[in-house]
Formats: sequence, C-alpha cells, structure tokens
Amino acid sequence: MEEPRNIHDLEFIVRDYECDLQGVVNNANYQHYLEHARHEFLISRGISFIELHHEGIDLIVTRVEIDYKYPLRSRDRFIVKTFIRRDGNVRINFYQDIYRIPDNKLIVKAVVTGVSTRNGKPVSPEPLIEKIQEYL
Amino acid sequence: MEEPRNIHDLEFIVRDYECDLQGVVNNANYQHYLEHARHEFLISRGISFIELHHEGIDLIVTRVEIDYKYPLRSRDRFIVKTFIRRDGNVRINFYQDIYRIPDNKLIVKAVVTGVSTRNGKPVSPEPLIEKIQEYL
Amino acid sequence: MEEPRNIHDLEFIVRDYECDLQGVVNNANYQHYLEHARHEFLISRGISFIELHHEGIDLIVTRVEIDYKYPLRSRDRFIVKTFIRRDGNVRINFYQDIYRIPDNKLIVKAVVTGVSTRNGKPVSPEPLIEKIQEYL
Amino acid sequence: MEEPRNIHDLEFIVRDYECDLQGVVNNANYQHYLEHARHEFLISRGISFIELHHEGIDLIVTRVEIDYKYPLRSRDRFIVKTFIRRDGNVRINFYQDIYRIPDNKLIVKAVVTGVSTRNGKPVSPEPLIEKIQEYL
Repeated sequence: MEEPRNIHDLEFIVRDYECDLQGVVNNANYQHYLEHARHEFLISRGISFIELHHEGIDLIVTRVEIDYKYPLRSRDRFIVKTFIRRDGNVRINFYQDIYRIPDNKLIVKAVVTGVSTRNGKPVSPEPLIEKIQEYL
Repeated sequence: MEEPRNIHDLEFIVRDYECDLQGVVNNANYQHYLEHARHEFLISRGISFIELHHEGIDLIVTRVEIDYKYPLRSRDRFIVKTFIRRDGNVRINFYQDIYRIPDNKLIVKAVVTGVSTRNGKPVSPEPLIEKIQEYL
Repeated sequence: MEEPRNIHDLEFIVRDYECDLQGVVNNANYQHYLEHARHEFLISRGISFIELHHEGIDLIVTRVEIDYKYPLRSRDRFIVKTFIRRDGNVRINFYQDIYRIPDNKLIVKAVVTGVSTRNGKPVSPEPLIEKIQEYL
Repeated sequence: MEEPRNIHDLEFIVRDYECDLQGVVNNANYQHYLEHARHEFLISRGISFIELHHEGIDLIVTRVEIDYKYPLRSRDRFIVKTFIRRDGNVRINFYQDIYRIPDNKLIVKAVVTGVSTRNGKPVSPEPLIEKIQEYL
C-alpha cells in the first residue's frame, strides 16, 4: 500500500533507562517519544517552538488519547509516524502511531490535540497552518 | 458537597526537575503522577503489583485519555483523586483527576483503562475485584 | 549521637516508575532526589531559585561525586540529609547522604559543588551566604 | 591529533523534554546519556546486560564523578566518548566525555566506576575483561 507523502517518520531505539520494573518501556515514556517526534516534525517544516514562544505564540497540548497495543523492550528499534489534521478553528490533531522495526508490529496509536495560544489566549493557528498546510 | 467514600486521594508537590523549558510540568510527567497514585491506591487495598506479578498476574494499561485543563508550575501542591469502575469482563477504568491545592483548580482529567493478564493473556480481574469491590 | 542542628532532612518514597529493568532505582534518579532536597533546603532558608534567577543570579552545579552504597527498591522510604560548607570564594559544597527508613541503611553519599553566577559570570555567593550563614 | 582506536563514540541530539526551567539539559539527564553510551559500547563488544544478568552477573555502578563544564540546550547535537580502564581486581572505570557538535565544545567530563557482581557479591570482571580487553 502506498503511504501518503505527508507522514513524517522518526526512528528511535529504546534506551535501557526508559524501561521499568516489568522489563518494558514505561507508559509515560511513549509521551516523550511522541513529543520529540512532533517537535522534529514541526522543525522539519521550519517551525521552532522557541522562536514562536518569543513571539508570544505557544502550541499547547490539551488532550492525548493513547492506545497501548504491544510493549517495547530494551533496545527495540521503532518508528514514530506523525500525521496532522486541522480540527475546527483553533485545534490541530496530531495522529501518531508507533511501529516496531523491522517487523512493523503496531505498538501505540495516539491522537494528540494542540491549541495555539497568543499570550495565553487560544487563537487561530494561522501562522502554523500556513507553514504546514500541505500536510493538512 | 459530600464526596463519595470510595475516592482515593494522594497529595504531591511539583519538583523543579519535572518542569520543562516552558516553565510548566512536562505533559508526560502527569502520567507518572497518575501511575504513582494508582499504585498507592492499590497498595492501600492490599494489592501489590510485585506479588501479583510473581503469581503470573499483571495489570496492564491499555489506554489513557488525558485532558490537560491548566498547567502546574514549580512547587505547586496538588492532589490526585482516583476512582475506579469495572468495565465489562476484563477491563477496569481508573478515573483520575488532578486538583491544585489549596484553590481546587482543575488541572487534569484522565481515564486510564487497565486489563488483567495471566501469563500474558487477558483474564477476568477477579482477584483484583474481590479486594477492591467496595470501590466498584 | 546528637546530630548537628544545621542538617536539613527530607523524606521520600520510591515511586515504581523510578525503578529500572534491574528492579532498583535507576542511578540518574538519585540526582533528582538530591536536586529536589537541595531546592527544598534553600526554600526552607527563604532562597527561591526563580526569584534569584529574575535578579540575574543563578546557582549552577559544576561537579557531583556520588558513591552508590546500596540500592533502593520499589516503595522504599528514605531520607536525604543535606549539609553545606563554603569552599573558597565562589563555591558552595552540598554534602548529601541518603539513608533508607527505618533501618538507617546508608544508600548514597554525595558531594555536589555549586557556583553562583550573575549574568553568567561566577560571583561571590554573598546573597546566598547571608541567608544560609548559620548552616556554614 | 590522532585519537586512540579504543574510544567509543555515540551521537545524540538534545530532546526538548530533557531541558528544565533554566532552558538547559537537567543535570540528571547527563547520567542517562552516559548510561546509554556505556550500554551501547558494551553491546558493540558483544556484551549484553540482560544475558549476563541471566547468568547471575551484574555490572553495578558504584561511583560517578561528573564535572559540568558547559550546558547543552534544546536540539544541540553532541557526542559521548567512552574509554575504559581496569582499576584493581574488581573495578572498571569508564572515562566519558561529552562534546557538543560541531564545535567540539567540552560539555561534561565523567568517570564512572563499575564493579562486577555474581549473585550480589563482587567478583573479578573476567568475563567482561575477556571481551573488551583490546580496550583496556
């Protein structure tokens, strides 16, 4: 099956300190992977959190839904696939899936909702949208 | 308003290392708070993960939904309220809310779904249910 | 034996997510415990990092020495004892020991060296020293 | 200057969640980087912690000394250089330096001391030494 061109891929390897007593990656660490993949995706589109922050604009996560399908273990390689859709006037949804490499086992399915704010108030995410519109 | 007797409360203080570049608690760290509160809740009911694990029984998180309402900052005090409901034959839902102290500002609303497994297969969570039934 | 009055004590409990594959607290997490204890110690003396930072003053860690004597495990209770000494014109040493509760087993011995900076340059830590002098 | 052949290099990029309130990598996270680099170094020599653990052998960190020379910031690239020396009958020292890329700014100098144990007792690290002897 052909994959849409607008999916961003980022590869990782599990580091031992990310695993917990049960020998698998601790649930909270998947949020770290997803966050890092979102930031790398935005950077790849020329969007820097820090520069936006200095202009008074922040992209805030307001909701996450994560389905844990199968655990990752020490030294597993995996890929985070990130895909975005605008949702109404102020929200952007990041659809993020994690697949183990090389067998493509589905590990996590997540939807992360973000809102643009200017000086703390929700605003239209236009400055972001312009830069990432071919992805929407 | 009177609060149901079956809500478990656990108090925390934000540690500086839990805050990120934006000066607020990093999103993933709320999952750490929620996990610690669930484990303390279960321990308070006489349920030890490690003992269950040695009997071949694990309680696995299969899904989280987290709404981030308002951020916590350095040294904020807060309480995690945990409440559970059985959901079908194999699932238990943990309803977990975080409130800042002392103003009761709502910070996070979460639903965390767990499944009991024996040797890796989903099973009825009876051994857990028996111990926590007055909470269901 | 009587303990000097100028030792600051802070009690913790090990949270499960702080343990790693080997079933013990991951080495890096002891630095989190030590950092939190130092900040609580300074706060107890009226010294706020954030306020100092806004005055252009930062207290930077320049060196740590940590001896790991015995590991902590899930749900162990422990105390971090913090004691300070001035070291020359610009350095302050924090002597920090971790003891398990209630058996007083020695877990970690650490020396953490900090330097005061103003706008990035090392300066005499006088504003700090004044506030904490009875500890020196 | 020519570099000895027995230095192991591992490249990283700073992830935003590793930075704290002060806008720099939190001190404890350097221990995570150093740990990951040691494990990758050992794996590159055919030494797996998990396999050794199943044979009853553990490599335990007993001491760290870390000099923090200069902070890393969001998205900085850096390299961890790892070099080892046997120290007496039971200890191995890992000399680990972190340099920023591409300007080779020295960030951290660390010495991490490890001891081999079999079923919890210190033993000669011979099984490790054999595999890594060209590095010693």
